[in-house]
Amino acid sequence: MTSAWQRWFPILSWGLRYKRTELTADGVAAAVVTLMLIPQSLAYALLAGLPPQAGLYASMAPLVLYALMGSSGALAVGPAAVTSLMTAASLGAIAAQGSVAYTEAALMLALVSGALMLVMGALRLGFLAHFLSHPVISGFVSASGLLIAASQLKHLLGVPLHGETLLQLIPNLFQQMPHVHWPTVFMGVGALGLLVLARQQLKPALKRWGVAAGTADVLSKAAPVAVLLLSIALAAGLHLADQGVRVVGAVPQGMPPLTLPSLSAGSWALAQALWVPALLISLVGFVESVSVGQSLAAKRRERIDPDAELRALGLSNMGAGLSGGFPVTGGFSRSVVNFDAGARTPAAGIFTALGLALAALFLTPWLFHLPQATLAATIMVAVLTLVDVGVFARTWRYAKTDFITLLLSFGLTLLAGVEAGLVAGVGASVLLLLYRTSRPHIAVVGQVPGTEHYRNVLRHTVLEQPQILGLRIDESLYFANARFLEDAIALQVAARPGLRHVVLQCSAINDIDASALESLETINERLQASGVQLHLSEVKGPVLDRLQRSHFLTQLSGQVFLTHHQALQALTS
Amino acid sequence: MTSAWQRWFPILSWGLRYKRTELTADGVAAAVVTLMLIPQSLAYALLAGLPPQAGLYASMAPLVLYALMGSSGALAVGPAAVTSLMTAASLGAIAAQGSVAYTEAALMLALVSGALMLVMGALRLGFLAHFLSHPVISGFVSASGLLIAASQLKHLLGVPLHGETLLQLIPNLFQQMPHVHWPTVFMGVGALGLLVLARQQLKPALKRWGVAAGTADVLSKAAPVAVLLLSIALAAGLHLADQGVRVVGAVPQGMPPLTLPSLSAGSWALAQALWVPALLISLVGFVESVSVGQSLAAKRRERIDPDAELRALGLSNMGAGLSGGFPVTGGFSRSVVNFDAGARTPAAGIFTALGLALAALFLTPWLFHLPQATLAATIMVAVLTLVDVGVFARTWRYAKTDFITLLLSFGLTLLAGVEAGLVAGVGASVLLLLYRTSRPHIAVVGQVPGTEHYRNVLRHTVLEQPQILGLRIDESLYFANARFLEDAIALQVAARPGLRHVVLQCSAINDIDASALESLETINERLQASGVQLHLSEVKGPVLDRLQRSHFLTQLSGQVFLTHHQALQALTS
Repeated sequence: MTSAWQRWFPILSWGLRYKRTELTADGVAAAVVTLMLIPQSLAYALLAGLPPQAGLYASMAPLVLYALMGSSGALAVGPAAVTSLMTAASLGAIAAQGSVAYTEAALMLALVSGALMLVMGALRLGFLAHFLSHPVISGFVSASGLLIAASQLKHLLGVPLHGETLLQLIPNLFQQMPHVHWPTVFMGVGALGLLVLARQQLKPALKRWGVAAGTADVLSKAAPVAVLLLSIALAAGLHLADQGVRVVGAVPQGMPPLTLPSLSAGSWALAQALWVPALLISLVGFVESVSVGQSLAAKRRERIDPDAELRALGLSNMGAGLSGGFPVTGGFSRSVVNFDAGARTPAAGIFTALGLALAALFLTPWLFHLPQATLAATIMVAVLTLVDVGVFARTWRYAKTDFITLLLSFGLTLLAGVEAGLVAGVGASVLLLLYRTSRPHIAVVGQVPGTEHYRNVLRHTVLEQPQILGLRIDESLYFANARFLEDAIALQVAARPGLRHVVLQCSAINDIDASALESLETINERLQASGVQLHLSEVKGPVLDRLQRSHFLTQLSGQVFLTHHQALQALTS
Repeated sequence: MTSAWQRWFPILSWGLRYKRTELTADGVAAAVVTLMLIPQSLAYALLAGLPPQAGLYASMAPLVLYALMGSSGALAVGPAAVTSLMTAASLGAIAAQGSVAYTEAALMLALVSGALMLVMGALRLGFLAHFLSHPVISGFVSASGLLIAASQLKHLLGVPLHGETLLQLIPNLFQQMPHVHWPTVFMGVGALGLLVLARQQLKPALKRWGVAAGTADVLSKAAPVAVLLLSIALAAGLHLADQGVRVVGAVPQGMPPLTLPSLSAGSWALAQALWVPALLISLVGFVESVSVGQSLAAKRRERIDPDAELRALGLSNMGAGLSGGFPVTGGFSRSVVNFDAGARTPAAGIFTALGLALAALFLTPWLFHLPQATLAATIMVAVLTLVDVGVFARTWRYAKTDFITLLLSFGLTLLAGVEAGLVAGVGASVLLLLYRTSRPHIAVVGQVPGTEHYRNVLRHTVLEQPQILGLRIDESLYFANARFLEDAIALQVAARPGLRHVVLQCSAINDIDASALESLETINERLQASGVQLHLSEVKGPVLDRLQRSHFLTQLSGQVFLTHHQALQALTS
């Protein structure tokens, strides 16, 4: 057994020394998560525009496959709110909801997304997820929460609403207001009210009534299942389906089907059409999964391996695509519940999958009368916690450039859709980063009298020599600030007619790339042409090593000094 | 007269104190440049796929307009090799060379490019050009040189060759080899040989023959004009046009026409189709122009204002678009000749424009017999200096990531075209920058015995406390390395079971963005959850100011210390 095998398949580490105590803990957690997942997976399938059983299927094979390669003991893999919204948005451009083509496209999306994750994980490209900066994710997730809530209004009001952005949904909503279906609204708003009440008031109320804290916690978590059962009972008892309230209807009973894609040119064209949305879903899903996985692992002083997570999520998504599901990820709420309920190893996921298999085999007939409005209410309550209002004020106070990125990804996600919002946000954060570092702080430095220290002439009373200019650059030199450096030095030199020497103090320069080297060569040549020597001081070791592999040091008109003070002493003597 | 007026229109500064000595210097320079520009502008029009007079037109109005707003006394504006190639590449997708639509698209391209430059200049967005890193430009320009040379083979061999990339041109060339037109080859290769000989041997030979250095210099610069005249004489004398050698033919005599775009929906659609290539041409043209302008200004210890240059080039391109031209920029060779010939102010450009106007009025009939093969030879000799073979070895030695960017932009420009090469190069340089800074150097630090210094435990013999971990991070913290920091700290903490305190030494951190702040908050929470306190030491003033505008410092489980030594003293006492 090599360690490489264990690195790729963590199950070989924890599985071979699996203990009875872990079995008990994982089993209890699995039971709790199964209860929670039944309504949630149905609801997310609805959100993704797929039949309800797709949600159950997407919560079985992926959980088992994740257990083979995943490194987190608490992560629960399955459909999640934001990735389900992104699934609906990307498939909407390909086929009509409810069609066979739409379901096939969902399978292909999961396959492509899984394949991309596997490749990225194998190539250790997990760092790509870092390009989704916090303001981008924050704005995107808040806007997604609002979009998801808006998209569920059609189920809550019983009217058809089309569109994937607020610009499309809101006018549509006003048009449809006269046609709302009141029995549906009654069910939906009733369920919504009960769920909000349970979330906010149930636990403190139970405690006031003398229920033990642990029991109160479990009861308040089971409230959504109770609301579900109540809705089913009401809908069945009052024959609401006959009055036009849309119910889930017949859900096929049984295990997930094997859904192999056809090896046709059409499949290939579909995969090509879906790879960009699949990449975005992969990145968003990976970021969500890794964030929650790391948080939970840290609570036990453990670590997860992001590249292993990427491979495990890739395998899970391939599994979802081959067994009638749609894109999955490690969801936030289900993983936290899994952790709180005491899950110790990925075996808890395998047990959860078993629980859901039992549900798929025996419980689906009971779901016939479940109103879609209740599922919509379940989604709305879950996603409104995604909307973070305070982040706008906090980010505005902290950093204006980050605020711009936040606002852009929030606004564009709402108004132009999830893909546009995400791409624009990433673009803006990269551009603003380059802009911020493209104008580094450059200080003219002079000698603090009586010391060997050289400080900014604007902040300290220092000594300067008219024929020598000392400059300290507070940033690594690279392509985005290389020309700025040329300009800045030209400006300083043009203002000093008697100048003979320029000394660059390089103590804050961690790197000099090829563009900056070219600029240094240009600066050296230009200074030489106007009779000024260029010197360097306090160059860091690795930077000097690299400069020695170029011709710059032989062309340099001046010298390289160990300290800035030595430079000044040599040039004034 | 406010200084804002003078900043926008530098002519108000130099024009109002224009002296007789400057008039003489500018006049002489203008005469030299005019002689050089006549063949060059015809050749670049040919390269751009336009009739020869377009080259003359593009060298008149733009020169005059540049003089109004430009800040460089030596820059000569007009068609240049790389921008002409890019013009041909972007118009090839819109219309067939030789058609009226093609000429109209060239005018629109110049207008859109000019408008973009004016807007970027007014908004001071000149820094956008910095995103073209040195390896990108280097690879792109070398590949463009080869592409231009390859594209001229059709004129040199007298065969039709289609295509804009080597992948298209080379197979085409092999097909056409049996059909080369030998009289054309004779003219073309003869002209090529003479030009190469003149460039390499004429000046030293003239000196050996006792000609004064200055005269030898002028004579060798005039050699292309001599080759031109010789070709015309040969072609006219031997009636080569009748034997199938393609000549320039009738060039309309007279001043540039006024070419206003029609205000139709078609014009608007054309402008929309051209804005991306126009942006790329603007950026490349601006980089070329500013580089040469800055080099020449520095020789006189002057400065140019990049944003003023952008506005002036924008106006010049608008002028080119309204007077029968095509996109222009400050060309390298013509500007150097202008500078060497003694040009002092942008008035030299106005005089050059007058010289070219005289040429357009009176010389065009003489160009009838000029073989296109001679012009092609002129271009090939000029552009082969763009190809820099040494840059590959130099960059490989200096920095591998820059080498990847260089190879990518070189290879894709050759094989997939100028736009693909440029865009891929910019993308690669940004991605590699993020990758490089996404894994900053993090050192575990310990106390150098007997001092207050704390250094890397791997490089120095230092004292460590088992319950305290000191970490120094050698990079600003931002979104691309924020999660890496979370991982790195989790890894260190997981390896130290007895740990109670983590102290981050922040002396090398110039900035902490909102994503990194979020990561610091997460790190703080996770450490707290596992019973470890987080402390900061040596936080820079501006960074601390900003942290105080967030909630981080109130949530921080530990303290902020002025120095790392104070932290260690407080935590061990």
